[in-house]
Amino acid sequence: METITLTMPLDMHVHLRDGDMLNIVAPLTSYSFSGALVMPNLVPPVTTLEAVKAYRHRIKLAMESDDFEPYMTLFYQNYSREFLESVQDHITAIKIYPSGATTNSEGGVVSFDIEPMRATLEAMSELGICLCVHGETNGFVMDREAEFMSVYEKLAINFPKLKIVMEHITTRAAVEMLDRYDNLYATITVHHLMITLDDVAGGMLRPHLFCKPIAKRPEDRAALLKVALEAHPKVMFGSDSAPHPKSAKESCGCGAGVFTAPIALQLLCEIFEAHNKLDNLQAFISDNAQRIYGICAEYKEVVLAKHDFVVPEMYGEVVPMRAGETLRWSIERVD
Amino acid sequence: METITLTMPLDMHVHLRDGDMLNIVAPLTSYSFSGALVMPNLVPPVTTLEAVKAYRHRIKLAMESDDFEPYMTLFYQNYSREFLESVQDHITAIKIYPSGATTNSEGGVVSFDIEPMRATLEAMSELGICLCVHGETNGFVMDREAEFMSVYEKLAINFPKLKIVMEHITTRAAVEMLDRYDNLYATITVHHLMITLDDVAGGMLRPHLFCKPIAKRPEDRAALLKVALEAHPKVMFGSDSAPHPKSAKESCGCGAGVFTAPIALQLLCEIFEAHNKLDNLQAFISDNAQRIYGICAEYKEVVLAKHDFVVPEMYGEVVPMRAGETLRWSIERVD
Repeated sequence: METITLTMPLDMHVHLRDGDMLNIVAPLTSYSFSGALVMPNLVPPVTTLEAVKAYRHRIKLAMESDDFEPYMTLFYQNYSREFLESVQDHITAIKIYPSGATTNSEGGVVSFDIEPMRATLEAMSELGICLCVHGETNGFVMDREAEFMSVYEKLAINFPKLKIVMEHITTRAAVEMLDRYDNLYATITVHHLMITLDDVAGGMLRPHLFCKPIAKRPEDRAALLKVALEAHPKVMFGSDSAPHPKSAKESCGCGAGVFTAPIALQLLCEIFEAHNKLDNLQAFISDNAQRIYGICAEYKEVVLAKHDFVVPEMYGEVVPMRAGETLRWSIERVD
Repeated sequence: METITLTMPLDMHVHLRDGDMLNIVAPLTSYSFSGALVMPNLVPPVTTLEAVKAYRHRIKLAMESDDFEPYMTLFYQNYSREFLESVQDHITAIKIYPSGATTNSEGGVVSFDIEPMRATLEAMSELGICLCVHGETNGFVMDREAEFMSVYEKLAINFPKLKIVMEHITTRAAVEMLDRYDNLYATITVHHLMITLDDVAGGMLRPHLFCKPIAKRPEDRAALLKVALEAHPKVMFGSDSAPHPKSAKESCGCGAGVFTAPIALQLLCEIFEAHNKLDNLQAFISDNAQRIYGICAEYKEVVLAKHDFVVPEMYGEVVPMRAGETLRWSIERVD
C-alpha cells in the first residue's frame, strides 16, 4: 500500500478555544501534529504573561500526548518593550486583528496607522517576535483581503526586519505579495486550497464551509494551490481550524469557521497527490515553518496510507469539513 | 399621519408553492396585491393546460380575498404552436429556467441554443406570450448573471417581437441591457434593493437572506436602486418571494429563497421614502407591469401609513426577511 511519512507536521494557525471545546479539539491536533501556533482570540483575549502561561497549561492538560508543542501567541495591543522582553521566551508570535474582523476580535485594532504602533512593532522587530496578521479591511466581503494589501506593504516597508505572516491568505493579490517583500510570509489553510465561494453559496448554502476570510474566486484558489504545491519557501500550512458547535453553525446567524484539524493531513495528501506533488508536502507542512519561525519541532513521524477514511459526522458537538464523506488517505500510525 | 395609497399593486414574480405552503403564503400575497405572476416551478413543473387550470384553482381556494388575480405561467419546454394557442388565454407568460439554476428547476433547458427553441419562441412571439427568463449560467456564483447577458442579447436579436423579461436582476450588467434592446424588460425584488453579499456572508452567515441569484456587489445594488427609484418604464416589481420552512433554511444545506411577500409593500415605502421618490412607487409597483404585460389588474387600493410595524418572527413555519424587526411603514387598510 502506498504510504507517505510526514516528519514533524506543524499547523501554524489553529484555534483551540477553551473549556469544553478545548478538551474536544486539543487532543485531535496534538495527535497528528508536532506543534501548532495557537491563536489568542479567547474571551478575554490573551494579552498578559499570566494568560499565556495559564492557557498553555490548560492546553497541555487537554492534550492526549506529550509530544506536542503549543506555540503560544499574544493578542496584539501596543505593548512596552519591557513587557515584550518579559514575555518573549513564552510566545512565538503576536497576532494582530482588525477589530470585529472575525470571532472574538472585538479588542483588535481600529486602525492600521503606523505611528501609534511604531514603538511596539520596532521592539518586536528587535526582539525577533513575528507579527501574524489577520489581513482584512471592513470593506465588501469579496474585496477585504485585496484591499488590505496596502497595509501589508506599509508594514513591510516600515519594519523591514519584522517577520510578517499574512494569515490564511485567500487571494491571488496576497500570493503576489510574497515575492515583492522579503519580510512577508503566509499561511494557507487546506479548505482554501479546495473551495471557492461556489462551494459555500453556489448551490445550497453550506454553513460548515463558511469562514473568514470567505473563500474567493476560482482564480484565487488556483494561485493559492500553485504556491502550496510548489511549497514556496515563504508559505506554511496553517489550518485556521475553528470549531463551532453544530447548533451555532446551523442557525439563523452562523459564525465563521471550518473545522479541519483531524482531517487536514489526509486532505493535504489527497490534494498534493492529485497534482503529483506529494514530494513537496513535507516542506509545506513543516520544513518551511521551522525555518521561517526558527523553531525546532518535537520529533514525530506521521505515516499516512492510501486507504479510505470515513470522516466522522461529529467530533463532540463539532461538525468537521467533509463530514460523513470518504477520504482516500488515512493516518496509519504516529511514531 | 403620512400615508400613501397604492392602486392595484402587482407582484410580477412570486412563488406560491403548493399544498400546505400554498395555504400559508397565498393569503399573504392576495391580501395586499391585486395580482401576481405565479412561477411554475412546482414538482412536477406546470407544463399542461390541465396543470395550469388546476394550480390556478388551488390558488383561488387558498386565497383570502376574491379581489386578486393569479397570473399563471407555464414552465418552458419546446411547445407546439397548436398547444400554445390552446393555452394562451390561461397564461400570462412562459418561464424558462436553466436546468438546476434554482429550486425545482431540474426540468429546465440544458442549453440556450436558439435553433432548437426557434419554433416555440416564434410562436410565442406571434401569439404575444411573454418569455420570463431566469438568467444565470452555471459559472462562478458571482458571475452567473453577468455571463448570461450574451444569451439575453441573442434572444432579443433573434426574436425582436418577443417580450423578454429578465427576472430578478441583480447586476449593473443587466440594468445596462434595458436601454440597449427594445424588447428586454426586468423585474427587481425588494431584497436586492436592500442587501449585498455582505449582508448574506459578510458578518455572520444569514441563511434567511440567501437567494438565487445571490445578492451581488454594492455597485450592482446601486444600479438596481437607480432604475427602481426612477421607475424606469421597463422595470417592474417582482418579489421572488420564496418560502422555505425554517428547519430547511437553518440546516447544513439551506435552500435559496427570501420570504418577503407580506412585508414587500412596507419595505418599498421605506426605500422610496428614504430617497424622496415615493411618487414613483405607483409606477414601479403596478403601472409599468400593466403596460408591459397589457393586463388590467383587479381594482384594489392599499393604504400604507407611516407608523411602526413589527415583522412577525414566523408566518406558519416560514421566517420572513426582517423577522422581529420594526418597519417604519405598515398597511393601514385595503379597499
